[in-house]
Amino acid sequence: MPQHDANHADATPLRIAMVLFPRLTQLDFTAPFEVFARVPGAEVAVVSETLEPVVSDTGLAILPTHTFQTAGTADVLFVPGGPGQIEQMANAALLDYLRRAADGAAWVTSVCTGSLLLAAAGLLQGYRATCHWLSIDQLSLFGVEPQPSRVVVDRNRITGAGITSGIDFALEVVAKLRGGDLARRLTLQLEYDPEPPFRTGNPRVADAALVEAARRNAAPMLEERRRQSLAAAARLGVRPGL
Amino acid sequence: MPQHDANHADATPLRIAMVLFPRLTQLDFTAPFEVFARVPGAEVAVVSETLEPVVSDTGLAILPTHTFQTAGTADVLFVPGGPGQIEQMANAALLDYLRRAADGAAWVTSVCTGSLLLAAAGLLQGYRATCHWLSIDQLSLFGVEPQPSRVVVDRNRITGAGITSGIDFALEVVAKLRGGDLARRLTLQLEYDPEPPFRTGNPRVADAALVEAARRNAAPMLEERRRQSLAAAARLGVRPGL
Repeated sequence: MPQHDANHADATPLRIAMVLFPRLTQLDFTAPFEVFARVPGAEVAVVSETLEPVVSDTGLAILPTHTFQTAGTADVLFVPGGPGQIEQMANAALLDYLRRAADGAAWVTSVCTGSLLLAAAGLLQGYRATCHWLSIDQLSLFGVEPQPSRVVVDRNRITGAGITSGIDFALEVVAKLRGGDLARRLTLQLEYDPEPPFRTGNPRVADAALVEAARRNAAPMLEERRRQSLAAAARLGVRPGL
Repeated sequence: MPQHDANHADATPLRIAMVLFPRLTQLDFTAPFEVFARVPGAEVAVVSETLEPVVSDTGLAILPTHTFQTAGTADVLFVPGGPGQIEQMANAALLDYLRRAADGAAWVTSVCTGSLLLAAAGLLQGYRATCHWLSIDQLSLFGVEPQPSRVVVDRNRITGAGITSGIDFALEVVAKLRGGDLARRLTLQLEYDPEPPFRTGNPRVADAALVEAARRNAAPMLEERRRQSLAAAARLGVRPGL
């Protein structure tokens, strides 16, 4: 069965650029990293504004390998989300890098509120995309069509929903890049046969009181995110709702 | 519904010690970190032999916050796995730390081949435990009863299976520590409603040829792991199979 043998796998070089910024949600980034880095031939660049350690919203410090200046072109561009995304919506250095990197990339991708950064860089207008359930409505401020699915593929844009969707997302990306056989092999390596102990993983399955409490607790953050989304959309000249 | 409101959550201090070592599988560590760090009152220490960046088997560099000497006591001890676990089986500094930390901990936990490190430290003898499917048989070399479940709870030992099981594992730990309401809330925050694109996540569901190829490709690593497990069991004075 040579199609199941790593020795016969396609190991064509594959350059993947994964962006880091302060107060990202680290699992948005680390789950796809675990999948992408296992693709034969993959070279994963961890790209940030400087080479200083980047600290996640929950305090985990990760080291970049490249800056926006030193990162070369990539076949796949990936952007995570998290509370820090809000501040990055007005970071011209990051948005410029996203535009440059996307220009040469075969696939432009994100997980969680990373899709709002792609939108703020002008890279999702006219596409369908997903986002964390609490913020997916904000995509429409950029002329992006929100689709509340776990993974959304629209032409060469692939977006994942909130945080833990990054595993499903990355396996779908691998299947697009290198075929289902490799994705099946990685699924087995990663022992990815999830058994969520609680069935409250999105607002369509969780009970209404739990969803309402989550919205209420997140309200100040969501309001600040919306302000930054509106400002970024205005800078792009996008008319909200279109 | 105050039980669903973060403002009313139990925020009693909770000290969690998470161990890092070179060539760990970073997702074994980062997935539980994402869950644990969101528990109100949690203080997560990232504990390693030195404060130098620790590089995962796939090249991601993470910064520790404490060394084996500076880490204080903890309520929860957590150990990840990965190829680097093999070398750590003979690292007296790490095994000594695990014994000291476990001594004062209410819960002693691991994901993936981290359970072999707990076993090598003499902390799992007579318990049921799980491990990555490729290596779970090696638990019996230490007098540990292998149980091929995604998460195994035996008294105050909680072990998770391979890599991605860390999310299911950590939510179960949170439910034990702080109750199901918080675990349900975190499940929603993390949008944990997985949709694996491929159903090959363990040897009971993947086709036999895929499983056989994975075993064949991993054979040299598994053999080296077994050599180190046998040596560690001999140092502990455990008779294999008991």
